[in-house]
Amino acid sequence: MTPEEMHALVRRLYPICRSITGDGVRETLAVIGERLALDVTEVPTGTQVLDWTVPKEWNIRDAYVKDPSGRRVVDFRVCNLHVVGYSVPVSGVFTLEELRPRLHTLPEQPSLVPYRTSYYAETWGFCLSQDVLDGLGEGPYEVCVDSTLADGSLTIAEHVLPGELPDEVVISCHVCHPSLANDNLAGVAVATALAGRLAAMGTRRHTYRFLFMPGTIGAITWLALNRDRVGLVRHGLTLACAGDRGPLTYKRSRRGDAGIDRAVTHVLGDRPHTVLDFSPYGYDERQFCSPGFDLPFGGLTRTPYAGYPEYHTSADDPGFVTPEAMADTLEVLWRVVGVLEGERTYLNLSPYGEPQLGRRGLYGSLGGRSDTKQAQMAMLWVLNLSDGDHSLLDIAERSALPFEAVETAARALATAGLVKEIG
Amino acid sequence: MTPEEMHALVRRLYPICRSITGDGVRETLAVIGERLALDVTEVPTGTQVLDWTVPKEWNIRDAYVKDPSGRRVVDFRVCNLHVVGYSVPVSGVFTLEELRPRLHTLPEQPSLVPYRTSYYAETWGFCLSQDVLDGLGEGPYEVCVDSTLADGSLTIAEHVLPGELPDEVVISCHVCHPSLANDNLAGVAVATALAGRLAAMGTRRHTYRFLFMPGTIGAITWLALNRDRVGLVRHGLTLACAGDRGPLTYKRSRRGDAGIDRAVTHVLGDRPHTVLDFSPYGYDERQFCSPGFDLPFGGLTRTPYAGYPEYHTSADDPGFVTPEAMADTLEVLWRVVGVLEGERTYLNLSPYGEPQLGRRGLYGSLGGRSDTKQAQMAMLWVLNLSDGDHSLLDIAERSALPFEAVETAARALATAGLVKEIG
Amino acid sequence: MTPEEMHALVRRLYPICRSITGDGVRETLAVIGERLALDVTEVPTGTQVLDWTVPKEWNIRDAYVKDPSGRRVVDFRVCNLHVVGYSVPVSGVFTLEELRPRLHTLPEQPSLVPYRTSYYAETWGFCLSQDVLDGLGEGPYEVCVDSTLADGSLTIAEHVLPGELPDEVVISCHVCHPSLANDNLAGVAVATALAGRLAAMGTRRHTYRFLFMPGTIGAITWLALNRDRVGLVRHGLTLACAGDRGPLTYKRSRRGDAGIDRAVTHVLGDRPHTVLDFSPYGYDERQFCSPGFDLPFGGLTRTPYAGYPEYHTSADDPGFVTPEAMADTLEVLWRVVGVLEGERTYLNLSPYGEPQLGRRGLYGSLGGRSDTKQAQMAMLWVLNLSDGDHSLLDIAERSALPFEAVETAARALATAGLVKEIG
Repeated sequence: MTPEEMHALVRRLYPICRSITGDGVRETLAVIGERLALDVTEVPTGTQVLDWTVPKEWNIRDAYVKDPSGRRVVDFRVCNLHVVGYSVPVSGVFTLEELRPRLHTLPEQPSLVPYRTSYYAETWGFCLSQDVLDGLGEGPYEVCVDSTLADGSLTIAEHVLPGELPDEVVISCHVCHPSLANDNLAGVAVATALAGRLAAMGTRRHTYRFLFMPGTIGAITWLALNRDRVGLVRHGLTLACAGDRGPLTYKRSRRGDAGIDRAVTHVLGDRPHTVLDFSPYGYDERQFCSPGFDLPFGGLTRTPYAGYPEYHTSADDPGFVTPEAMADTLEVLWRVVGVLEGERTYLNLSPYGEPQLGRRGLYGSLGGRSDTKQAQMAMLWVLNLSDGDHSLLDIAERSALPFEAVETAARALATAGLVKEIG
Repeated sequence: MTPEEMHALVRRLYPICRSITGDGVRETLAVIGERLALDVTEVPTGTQVLDWTVPKEWNIRDAYVKDPSGRRVVDFRVCNLHVVGYSVPVSGVFTLEELRPRLHTLPEQPSLVPYRTSYYAETWGFCLSQDVLDGLGEGPYEVCVDSTLADGSLTIAEHVLPGELPDEVVISCHVCHPSLANDNLAGVAVATALAGRLAAMGTRRHTYRFLFMPGTIGAITWLALNRDRVGLVRHGLTLACAGDRGPLTYKRSRRGDAGIDRAVTHVLGDRPHTVLDFSPYGYDERQFCSPGFDLPFGGLTRTPYAGYPEYHTSADDPGFVTPEAMADTLEVLWRVVGVLEGERTYLNLSPYGEPQLGRRGLYGSLGGRSDTKQAQMAMLWVLNLSDGDHSLLDIAERSALPFEAVETAARALATAGLVKEIG
Repeated sequence: MTPEEMHALVRRLYPICRSITGDGVRETLAVIGERLALDVTEVPTGTQVLDWTVPKEWNIRDAYVKDPSGRRVVDFRVCNLHVVGYSVPVSGVFTLEELRPRLHTLPEQPSLVPYRTSYYAETWGFCLSQDVLDGLGEGPYEVCVDSTLADGSLTIAEHVLPGELPDEVVISCHVCHPSLANDNLAGVAVATALAGRLAAMGTRRHTYRFLFMPGTIGAITWLALNRDRVGLVRHGLTLACAGDRGPLTYKRSRRGDAGIDRAVTHVLGDRPHTVLDFSPYGYDERQFCSPGFDLPFGGLTRTPYAGYPEYHTSADDPGFVTPEAMADTLEVLWRVVGVLEGERTYLNLSPYGEPQLGRRGLYGSLGGRSDTKQAQMAMLWVLNLSDGDHSLLDIAERSALPFEAVETAARALATAGLVKEIG
């Protein structure tokens, strides 16, 4: 996918009213499914999943607040953020006074509509800008939420690319936010593009599993369904906020030094970026890294969770994410994949002194120059550290050389019979 | 005790001529004893204590240098710093020339009287300001030190507050300095106030032992007498220089990462403060942290040992210490006690995924907001790290949340049956 | 040797045309041999040494490029850098066009002659300044390299100073560079001076071995010949670039925390200096620290390898190195020797409380002063940390006191019977 195709996917998915259950999720998965073969699982309302229960399914057709003149002053059809997620059906007439406790605004960002939900406490409400609220008269207002909250199912989808090894690299995106572009759709678009690239790779060492699921309850459901096989997860990433203009942020796994932590931090290297230690808040790394599972899941975002003023507001629209930023996120992920795929341990078979690289054509013949090249340094580093205790990533970290240069050097040395792969 | 009562105690103790032995110590302990029940031990001169011997007891009634006109130009009755501590009796007439080697001044602080002692080499001498010395004529001078140095005893006092556990938290203050306010009396006042607060607590987990003893020889004597039971000391602090206006300074124990080190540094947290690594100089942590004992003793001061120009001079008077500074020291100690008392390890009983806090009333029902509260973060941290390997203090350090918030969260989770105390 | 004698040695060795084999090396060793008894080993061409083969021996008498007027526009007799090292014999007439691929210059430093070699690919060439090259006409030019490349031997020399222990401190210098002063001769001069000082010591704890060898192939040859005894190397240093005006640079051994690493970094202490982690490039630490050997070799230079614009050019002449800089390098090495010789572990025999230093004459009798002296602090540190787990260097590092002060304190305490040497 080109950067523009990723952005087009964001724009196409943007108007759909997603929530943690319901047809919005299914419609979203159908669009992703045009590009990736998805295994979709429907988990019925009431199913016990770990400490939780799959909730009723919520669907909505319309919602509004009409003023005395019959004008929709708050209109779900204009922006699906206007209704509090999981609002129960309501139809009636209310004064502004009566309505006010159910009207959510952002007084400090008076022109924006906030995003609010109430999944587990049955209620209803509306979100609107403070500016609109300030212009409302006393009413009365005709209020309608045309929704259903009933037994149904929760929907999760997976896309698997088998590899030579059974161990898995898992990329997880949430698909439960309605019209929010950076905070869910950019991640979905980048993950979809990454899956496409991986499919084109031919053989893969690892198996790659992409998860498109509602946040929290989706991850909990997936963990409950896969409890016996999570040991196969060798590396995991939650991917979110993948398209804003800020620099990348990596949040370490609970373990702090898992392979994914080292691979991502190495790739981020000398780019402007931030690395955060794990905290039990944010996206679904909360669940993957709960102490009973303690999976090696990090989190990749650009500007992180709640770190930008547009977060969870109507300003997180397709204009807030850019093709370039999504392409950049994808490029970093692609280099991370390169590290995960290329990581090996070699053993120096000629460990006493340096082997004579020159006669093997691996070293320039003219001595005395001071501008030694990266390729030669990479060979010297691989030889020096391939004592059985250091992998290529260890060597890349220690030498501050790009993993790709270290990997290339190791292959050249292996071809020359100077090192052999041992793990 | 109120801040003002602490300061009043400093002022009341200030004029007493304390030394490492003698009636000045006893008089000081009698004043402390008006507030705390003290166990006083008299250890006779000549008793072998570790590598040392309890010295002769020193008492002094008067000391002066009279000029040819009969005026006391140096007068113990005006300020007890004027006589070198442990000066042997003398009575005679000397020229200035003869006296000069026995006159101690601070040429760089010409208006101040220094504090000097000679416990283990029998001699006599006077301390005076450089300004006064500069004004003295050739003499002759009538000199008198009306002291006794004779067999007697060394006095140490303890105040014990029993707890549920036999292990002890020991707070040690020196009481051997004459008229020096910050460097001994402020610590005595704060320790006395802390003991009062602890007594009012009802039940305590740990036993608290307060030591009021002369420096060095007192600590050595106490260690010698308690050699078989020092294993009960779980946490220790020497408390000194507790009342000046500077920020707090914590000096780590020799171990460097003892429980007391972690508790104090956590409480100091983001206050302005200094943490120093252990060094074998300063107060009685020198003795408690000698390698044979290696007890977990840290040192708490405001401006540390020898770190302020008033140190060991007549300028370390009651005006140099403030009620506010002593109250602040006490407050930090009280929070340290809170950590030592509250420290526990819990086990998450629902470690697979997050438990659903909302249905237990532990989590706000309205989703989407970005201003998650400290109390909720504390619950998430306790759940995430209560894997059997992390105590509440570990969690507080890792999360950078106040210990109190973490402890409160753990209690709420325990009440809800989500965690249980395991240590 | 005085600083001036070291500089005179550099000047005397400067004109000799050294390479990795040949009479230039032998002549150099003969000059060093006037001061140090050298064991010289000649290793025949064709000998297998680790992964390498000893090359043919190269000798050169003359080389030039004459312009049509018969003037030597490039003249080996003026500067031996003008011929590419190991150039095979040639005699003929060439146009500038034909010659150009064999003429090496430094376009960015147009007035300097570069240093180039081609040890393992048989070729010939000249080095000259860009300025001279720019002034050359089309020719034709008479070209001569009057050299021989034939079976012979490679020459390495050792100077050994026996110690009480068989373990060795090895100082290695390369002697394969022609007229380059900082990059080989300054190291040779400083090493020669250090050997002289060590000889004057009387008894030494360690055995000291000085190696004067060509770079790379020399070290590989020595390692091949000494493969069974390299286990005796307890500490090693490659010494190079020892005479420029820059501050000292220490490059850690591959181990990173070997005894030599700790000794040198302690001695460098608060001087301006740089410490670099090991990298598999530079001088012969490349060979000594190859993973099969992994010897504890660090590298000491002033401005490091390739770190100054004069590096490997005609500007690295005797004027580039100074007597003062070489004396400074020597002084630091001498202090390092002091640490290696003095390093011991003592056990505190009076570990419960502080022993009473005063009655043993080890502590000032007048108490209360705040200006405690380094000697007293050193005694307190030695007592506190001599628990069997800390050596004198550990104590010096921990206390930030000079090793010499710690060693002196330990000796005084040992004399007083308070500590005893245990290792």
